[in-house]
Amino acid sequence: MPRYTKKDYPLVDIRRHLETGPIVLVSSAWKGQTNIMTMGWHMMMGFSPALFGCYIWEQNHSFEMIRRSRQCVINVPTVDLASQVVGIGNTSGASVDKFEKFGLTADEAEEVKAPLIRECYANFECQLHDSRLIKRYSLFVWEVVKAHVAVSPVRPKTMHYRGDGEFMIAGATLNLRRKFRAGML
Amino acid sequence: MPRYTKKDYPLVDIRRHLETGPIVLVSSAWKGQTNIMTMGWHMMMGFSPALFGCYIWEQNHSFEMIRRSRQCVINVPTVDLASQVVGIGNTSGASVDKFEKFGLTADEAEEVKAPLIRECYANFECQLHDSRLIKRYSLFVWEVVKAHVAVSPVRPKTMHYRGDGEFMIAGATLNLRRKFRAGML
Repeated sequence: MPRYTKKDYPLVDIRRHLETGPIVLVSSAWKGQTNIMTMGWHMMMGFSPALFGCYIWEQNHSFEMIRRSRQCVINVPTVDLASQVVGIGNTSGASVDKFEKFGLTADEAEEVKAPLIRECYANFECQLHDSRLIKRYSLFVWEVVKAHVAVSPVRPKTMHYRGDGEFMIAGATLNLRRKFRAGML
Repeated sequence: MPRYTKKDYPLVDIRRHLETGPIVLVSSAWKGQTNIMTMGWHMMMGFSPALFGCYIWEQNHSFEMIRRSRQCVINVPTVDLASQVVGIGNTSGASVDKFEKFGLTADEAEEVKAPLIRECYANFECQLHDSRLIKRYSLFVWEVVKAHVAVSPVRPKTMHYRGDGEFMIAGATLNLRRKFRAGML
């Protein structure tokens, strides 16, 4: 299991860990129960406030917990957690305590009741910003209110779902900063 | 410049090339002009119809062209096009023909007037599905109506933006298909 040392992270920079498109684990809490789901359909929607949209299928056990609590934590796992990521996506929280089953640790968040997953590389605490698109598109629009990101490595080996049981693992880094105009980074 | 041989691709499978979170080039056409923009904020929103959401900042020259024409093509470049991707993102189509400036070829699409970028690995022709979220979130919800994907390589080296001028390049493949329950792929 990875053991990351994390620190507070500027909300305006969270795109660095989300825009690349990693699979994430969404943790939630409602009426004394917690749950985790695996999720790959998401996008940044704003820098400040830090808005983040994600698709949560209404058939997921997490759906009602998240909709009612109006909170969640978006946790970014690295490839060390590959078997947990797949196991969580293939198990329903209706019958199983996923933290226990998958050996993960629920840490207390600062701004929300949903737990942080300690073993993930980054944790983004979210408050529901807009519920109006849930019915039409299963789209939850979140404001990220607190971010915790591991100090090292700077470039984590995140997992990116290709469908059909296959993941792409984050590869080499290409820095083209010198080619950007000022203000266009 | 990459030269890809492409074929028609099943719409229900396009998530394989979009869910991983690649930077994409959005091509558009309006009143005899074409344009291209670089875009990283997007997500899958449905399998069938194949829905895809993306954030287009209203300050982009492409914004009005796309909003008025109600069409675009989402083109997925590989790392071979890195300098074009950055150049396109740092140039305004108001003053420049980006196809000419960046040495790209505009191929005719089948279902829309916006051009396909020949040198990209995949091209997804889009019709506007829902304009109601443009004003509130700059969010365009598209229906992908035709997909063209390169035959080879099966696992392209896509680019994933980390912010601050830095890209993550698609790395190794991890196949965990055997760990998935049937129907959960």
